[in-house]
Amino acid sequence: VDTDWLVDGKPGFLDPSDRGLAYGDGLFETMAAESGAIRWLDYHLERLRSGCRRLKIPEPDETILRREIAERCPPAGRAVVKLIVTRGKGARGYRPPAEVSPTRLIGAAAWPVRPEANYSTGIELIRCEIRLGRNPALAGLKHLNRLEQVLARAELPDEHAHEGLLLDSDGQVVGCTSSNIFAVTGRELVTPEIRYCGVEGVMRRIVIETAGQLGLEASGRAMRPEALLAADALFVTNAVFGIWPVRSFGDRMYATSPIIRALQSALGYGADA
Amino acid sequence: VDTDWLVDGKPGFLDPSDRGLAYGDGLFETMAAESGAIRWLDYHLERLRSGCRRLKIPEPDETILRREIAERCPPAGRAVVKLIVTRGKGARGYRPPAEVSPTRLIGAAAWPVRPEANYSTGIELIRCEIRLGRNPALAGLKHLNRLEQVLARAELPDEHAHEGLLLDSDGQVVGCTSSNIFAVTGRELVTPEIRYCGVEGVMRRIVIETAGQLGLEASGRAMRPEALLAADALFVTNAVFGIWPVRSFGDRMYATSPIIRALQSALGYGADA
Repeated sequence: VDTDWLVDGKPGFLDPSDRGLAYGDGLFETMAAESGAIRWLDYHLERLRSGCRRLKIPEPDETILRREIAERCPPAGRAVVKLIVTRGKGARGYRPPAEVSPTRLIGAAAWPVRPEANYSTGIELIRCEIRLGRNPALAGLKHLNRLEQVLARAELPDEHAHEGLLLDSDGQVVGCTSSNIFAVTGRELVTPEIRYCGVEGVMRRIVIETAGQLGLEASGRAMRPEALLAADALFVTNAVFGIWPVRSFGDRMYATSPIIRALQSALGYGADA
Repeated sequence: VDTDWLVDGKPGFLDPSDRGLAYGDGLFETMAAESGAIRWLDYHLERLRSGCRRLKIPEPDETILRREIAERCPPAGRAVVKLIVTRGKGARGYRPPAEVSPTRLIGAAAWPVRPEANYSTGIELIRCEIRLGRNPALAGLKHLNRLEQVLARAELPDEHAHEGLLLDSDGQVVGCTSSNIFAVTGRELVTPEIRYCGVEGVMRRIVIETAGQLGLEASGRAMRPEALLAADALFVTNAVFGIWPVRSFGDRMYATSPIIRALQSALGYGADA
């Protein structure tokens, strides 16, 4: 494994008593490092802070986080930098300790190689069988409880030109195994609301903000899979790969959309980026 | 933290790239050690094996597990021994690696001191606000995704004479934050079915088996909170504390039940055990 972790500021390992392992009691951010800096770092740190507040984990000092993240960014080229913040160690049992001393872990991994065609012609969308449980208390958070995503990803064949579509236990669209999804109809973008489950992706937020700047409507709403079939075009987003169009979902094929091109171009993603 | 972990057979720490931390991609068992041996060890190992099969994690060699667990049992007195098995390290991303080398972690902690009255007069049952998401793919498993239980436990005051009652997103009773629950009516025991969520507790299974030996009916069924109020008596079970009667649930008080006493006595639990 090509990682080399900083644990609370020093190269090292994790105490197995940490609540991050015991209960998945923590949060993470997966970030794109490019030429020595993290893209969208402020957005990642803002989501982390918001997650800490919701889970009542004390927020790690941001100056320290920024310094340690910078230490783990390779000076040139691309890499994926991962930040994990857990509720730290504590007495045995689910109850959070009265005095929490969070653990922070920062590691870097090689940039994943993706087919260029993912950006131009797009990817295949495949519906996963597993459904996500609904829990408003956890919806939106990038927390460490990800077994549902692991099982969903295991349903898919092993190559990169697809994403797995996830529905919740009520049949609503949530997003994809590692990304959020948007439907384009006319000049309107719709993405599933993050109310009962799913992650509030950093790139989801950036796309919604950028849509406004491009004169497009964008909103989060309850969505059924039929809404995906009825749309002009679909695309998926995450903070590492950016924006990929969807070329097919079952029998439905989607044409290239100038709106997706405009978003890719505004944010610096594309086959030539 | 009074633990001293064996990681893959050697005293040590965890690689932060382990999928147990990254995704909660693993299982655990919390076991009662007494006078140098684990109570109900065969049941714990059987549940672990069944969980590994469902999550497609290769089952660790049982001879090795038994030896390492024995190493961590104090020769005298009581302790809690925890076993964690994860899907090990793997490439970045949710997809399980093609070749899995599971990580096994074994640690011991001090025996928790509980009021004697928990066994005799019983505990208070308090309904938690948080609801559990429903996911049949994870129901029954003692997996490492336990944020819901952490948030539920955090709702309760900090003392030991209570358990938090958990309902699922549909309003069905699932169990308690750290235990399963049984309702006693006449000579019949009913416990919530473990179909959409919840853990198949080792002590839940033992109580169902023992009920048969004592000439009692016992079954798992869909249950609403009203069924708890209508029952003659309630009790909660886990493999560490055993069996505690419930003395109150909201305004409802429950009398001491000879059936609960018979189960405690058959299994060696009680104020004098």
